[in-house]
Amino acid sequence: MEQKPISKAVITRLPRYYRHLGELMEEGVERISSNDLSQRMHVTASQIRQDLNNFGGFGQQGYGYNVKYLYTEIAKIMGVDRQHNLIIIGAGNLGQAIANYANFERRGFIIKGMFDINPRLIGRVVRGVEILGVENLEKFIVDHDVQIAALTIPKTKAPEIADRLVAAGIKAIWNFAHTDLVVPDDVVVENVHLSESLMRLSYRVCSMQDQKEQEKKRSNRL
Amino acid sequence: MEQKPISKAVITRLPRYYRHLGELMEEGVERISSNDLSQRMHVTASQIRQDLNNFGGFGQQGYGYNVKYLYTEIAKIMGVDRQHNLIIIGAGNLGQAIANYANFERRGFIIKGMFDINPRLIGRVVRGVEILGVENLEKFIVDHDVQIAALTIPKTKAPEIADRLVAAGIKAIWNFAHTDLVVPDDVVVENVHLSESLMRLSYRVCSMQDQKEQEKKRSNRL
Repeated sequence: MEQKPISKAVITRLPRYYRHLGELMEEGVERISSNDLSQRMHVTASQIRQDLNNFGGFGQQGYGYNVKYLYTEIAKIMGVDRQHNLIIIGAGNLGQAIANYANFERRGFIIKGMFDINPRLIGRVVRGVEILGVENLEKFIVDHDVQIAALTIPKTKAPEIADRLVAAGIKAIWNFAHTDLVVPDDVVVENVHLSESLMRLSYRVCSMQDQKEQEKKRSNRL
Repeated sequence: MEQKPISKAVITRLPRYYRHLGELMEEGVERISSNDLSQRMHVTASQIRQDLNNFGGFGQQGYGYNVKYLYTEIAKIMGVDRQHNLIIIGAGNLGQAIANYANFERRGFIIKGMFDINPRLIGRVVRGVEILGVENLEKFIVDHDVQIAALTIPKTKAPEIADRLVAAGIKAIWNFAHTDLVVPDDVVVENVHLSESLMRLSYRVCSMQDQKEQEKKRSNRL
């Protein structure tokens, strides 16, 4: 069956559906109505029906969605039913946190190698993966058919390493370095900028405080 | 001057402007035109003019934006000119990665404490901060006027800790646990779900592959 293109907004929401459907499966739930899923996910039922309509009409009135089927379909669309070979560049705390996160492997992301420039880290083993020096990077990528590189190194080093990764044929960079990488159009960059996330949080806390203060002033005036 | 409300979309983009403006200041640049900023940020100049118009008309034709002024204004709006006291719950690799990230402190986020349930971690010191047991959590929050808690613990433990944080008066949770927290309306939750980010990357890699294969087929047919 040919899949019709799914909007970017829906794609952004699919990982969250995927997580909740996975939890439902663990709980032994086989079918769920849009209303029950709505309550669970704190999303309106009409949003859910609209989003899941993209996968054809398998949410039947009074019958609900087949949890496992939906989970499998979303996995196919997101490509997590395929295997992706991954390396981590930067074996500091963040790199090790990623290496230790077993959930990634369950979703088809296999950590093939870790790299660092720090001699004190090179040779150590994290979850069965030895930390190597970056001089072996290019050969390793080709030998192990690596598609994805997680970049958990300081921003000053990131552009140079990104160039080497691209030249070695990497398909995607999961970028934790706090800088914008310049790569060819056919290389995917997914940014995780933690300090930007923290700034958004700060903004929301401050807005909340300002709002409360204004409400206080208003009620004092009454 | 009363600030007119800024749209959510612009707010989402502000941290990135803030980062680039900070880098420009480090490079000693005092003024920049929307065209130069556009090239640097890979955003259209008209988008930049539209976004920065929210801060009044200080982007003058042929004269450019005052980098430091814009940087300071954005800092005020995002609330990073104020001090935020922060604790980290979960002193594993991810918690330590956050604690070691000096940039946060420069933006007014002061790490007051770290907490864990693992006896092997309790008592250790990370960047001058001692790791404490969670039994001291509530008192610590009150004593140190803590507003923000970063949650870097497994998802099974997260809801219970979140309830304790809220009861102790925390204003915001920076949630790295892979679950949706249920909190009152006046508590801010900013989620960083790494496996969802990795799924979006996987989706984009697969789309790119499928697209290339289709193009190949098409060119073979011609």
